[in-house]
Amino acid sequence: MTDQDLRVQLLLTGNEIMSGDTVDSNSAMISRRLGELAITVHRRVTVGDDVQLLQQELAAMASGSDVVIVNGGLGPTVDDLTAEILATVAGVGIEQHPEAVAHLEQWCAGRNLPLNDANMKQALLPAGAAIIDNPIGSAVGFELSVQGCRVICTPGVPGELAAMLDEILASLATQLPRPVERSILRLQTFGLGESTAQQMISDAMPHWPDEVALGFRAGAPQMEIKLTIDRAADAPARQRCREELEALFGDHIIGEGDTLLAQRVLELLRERGSTLTTAESCTGGLIASMLTRIPGSSDAFHAGFVTYANDIKHSVLGVEQSVLVDQGAVSEPVVRQMAMGALERARADYAVAVSGIAGPDGGTEDKPVGTVWLAWGDRAHIRTRCLRWPVERTLFQTMVAAGALDAIRRLLLGIEEEPRYFAQRRAR
Amino acid sequence: MTDQDLRVQLLLTGNEIMSGDTVDSNSAMISRRLGELAITVHRRVTVGDDVQLLQQELAAMASGSDVVIVNGGLGPTVDDLTAEILATVAGVGIEQHPEAVAHLEQWCAGRNLPLNDANMKQALLPAGAAIIDNPIGSAVGFELSVQGCRVICTPGVPGELAAMLDEILASLATQLPRPVERSILRLQTFGLGESTAQQMISDAMPHWPDEVALGFRAGAPQMEIKLTIDRAADAPARQRCREELEALFGDHIIGEGDTLLAQRVLELLRERGSTLTTAESCTGGLIASMLTRIPGSSDAFHAGFVTYANDIKHSVLGVEQSVLVDQGAVSEPVVRQMAMGALERARADYAVAVSGIAGPDGGTEDKPVGTVWLAWGDRAHIRTRCLRWPVERTLFQTMVAAGALDAIRRLLLGIEEEPRYFAQRRAR
Repeated sequence: MTDQDLRVQLLLTGNEIMSGDTVDSNSAMISRRLGELAITVHRRVTVGDDVQLLQQELAAMASGSDVVIVNGGLGPTVDDLTAEILATVAGVGIEQHPEAVAHLEQWCAGRNLPLNDANMKQALLPAGAAIIDNPIGSAVGFELSVQGCRVICTPGVPGELAAMLDEILASLATQLPRPVERSILRLQTFGLGESTAQQMISDAMPHWPDEVALGFRAGAPQMEIKLTIDRAADAPARQRCREELEALFGDHIIGEGDTLLAQRVLELLRERGSTLTTAESCTGGLIASMLTRIPGSSDAFHAGFVTYANDIKHSVLGVEQSVLVDQGAVSEPVVRQMAMGALERARADYAVAVSGIAGPDGGTEDKPVGTVWLAWGDRAHIRTRCLRWPVERTLFQTMVAAGALDAIRRLLLGIEEEPRYFAQRRAR
Repeated sequence: MTDQDLRVQLLLTGNEIMSGDTVDSNSAMISRRLGELAITVHRRVTVGDDVQLLQQELAAMASGSDVVIVNGGLGPTVDDLTAEILATVAGVGIEQHPEAVAHLEQWCAGRNLPLNDANMKQALLPAGAAIIDNPIGSAVGFELSVQGCRVICTPGVPGELAAMLDEILASLATQLPRPVERSILRLQTFGLGESTAQQMISDAMPHWPDEVALGFRAGAPQMEIKLTIDRAADAPARQRCREELEALFGDHIIGEGDTLLAQRVLELLRERGSTLTTAESCTGGLIASMLTRIPGSSDAFHAGFVTYANDIKHSVLGVEQSVLVDQGAVSEPVVRQMAMGALERARADYAVAVSGIAGPDGGTEDKPVGTVWLAWGDRAHIRTRCLRWPVERTLFQTMVAAGALDAIRRLLLGIEEEPRYFAQRRAR
């Protein structure tokens, strides 16, 4: 990838970040958004709310950069030092900024709050600073040039920062030495590991074109594959790469952008006017929760059952007592009957059922912690499978819930071929 | 608080952190653990996998600190530069370290993996470096002194870092100018905001003792209150503060340490040999999922119902059709009947039911997005309440699920008084 010829540094401030009480997700947000303009953050420095340290860092960073983005310290308390420090480093005074006052008045009026002194502090900005609108919070952002370096000050509240980044990106775009042609295509996958995917691509596509940058972002349960190009002219090359990836990974690709498994499942159900129900033991409601997190899920998801205890599997879903006793709760006939019972009780078109051993206790030699039986299908045909995810309890629940959704996704897409992870995760 | 007189800096490396594809949670982990020794991280610098930049930063940091902790870059790939850079900065060579080789051999043998060249790279360390054991991964940590500054190199994989920090802390503790007496008491609360809590404390305890440092860590759904002392002799003063906080916030305090609401509810149920069931509409399985995330939850949680659609509330939980039609799904009689139906079907001792409007659509003037009816209790007595959390969908689900668990917690503790947030969140 060819980055813009622009030196950008990030200065993060806040005692709560230095103490580790808050995990800093803001700098990742800023870096990802800047990446859209092919701007790479060169260096990031984090310090507490300490006047001297902040002044020293800001002065050093400004003298070596084209742009410094400062995050944090815009609030109304005495710990919020950013305006004061920027003024000192720039050698200007602090003054009340009429636009910032107007913003505060409007913000307080909309909330029926009095405009107090603490709030008014947020309108005291370095002389000559330009305002950056804050569409959702009381503290405006601001920008001032220090010896030719643009210093851009942003709020620490993540939602307010997010709301300000469009304006900042648009303004930075005008300053770039070459036009922004970067385009990032993101593909969401399930069931692939990063190193496996990397190896498969190296083996299958030895002549991968240099102009299409390949990246991975491993998450649980999904993994993102990124294809970045820096010139519009490279779009056809990327399209060829995409087609090759689709041929290679096939139905392990869930969709583009931020697509979540649950979202894709709900889309597919909605397309055919069908509904899904869930019968969960070891995932304890997580599959239902992943579905209902998505706005509009009520179209296609009407009912879910968490049947954690054996007698509930019997009384609520109609699983036979004798089967529970003979085969145990983590068994093929039990998940099959859970799925059938859920289909009937929810009057749904499709069902998915899971029963497994999440741990840390409850494993046996025969069925160790991490073993799970899945069942999925419709009235005509229920499929079943035993898999093994020998990982920590909550990660196990996450991967099993995602695997259950993936099974339904594959069924709705009419994919008969088994996913790669079925073989890798086979029990025994 | 009195910090140790020790200058500690953190150097983070990794392109995935600079690009924002990975959110750095490691530095928060390191800072929080160091806080136990009263060590404050002074400054943190993050750069990508760039030899020149890393050398420059490390040299500058080492010359101005007693300790530099480097995180990342210990892996087997060409991007992993830490050993090489430390050797250059220290002016020593790189050599194969027998202890590291032994660790790799053992690690590979335990996994039936061949010891390949890529792995062996992890045994090439700066001459004279001391090894830090990695109990779970292939890359050992290592430490070397650079002009009197201890440079400690740690792995970027969070689990491996966590596993190494005990040894590092024990070693740092021996170097401290004064004995470690710091003790941190953490109290988990639900239903209090940070600024409200701060104000209440200022009003009620104007003579708060200087030797007990008060801190807050706001999270969703819980908020942590931290009481830190630096001398064992201050324990009685802290105990008095704790008692005053307990008098002030009372039953808004859930427990000590990392106690989660769901965990506390399960404990209380277990103590009396009782069981809980859930009937969820707008939270869609999240309450059940919060409960079943906790190991051993099956003792006290046997069944949960996700009844998202009206006809399911009727067919699965026995809510009367006429009530659904006349009052709507988000109404007092509906949640009451959901709770009663769940109690009966799960044969549980206690039930909690929720029905509300998570948004973004579905609100009306009468029942705007964010409105929720809660019902909780046992066969003898079901309580109900309408509350309003006008926040984004997933945060709404989180807060409502936590509110439902809190209602059960209060009931099990025999607390009749209403929590503060009932009044604040009253739906007109």
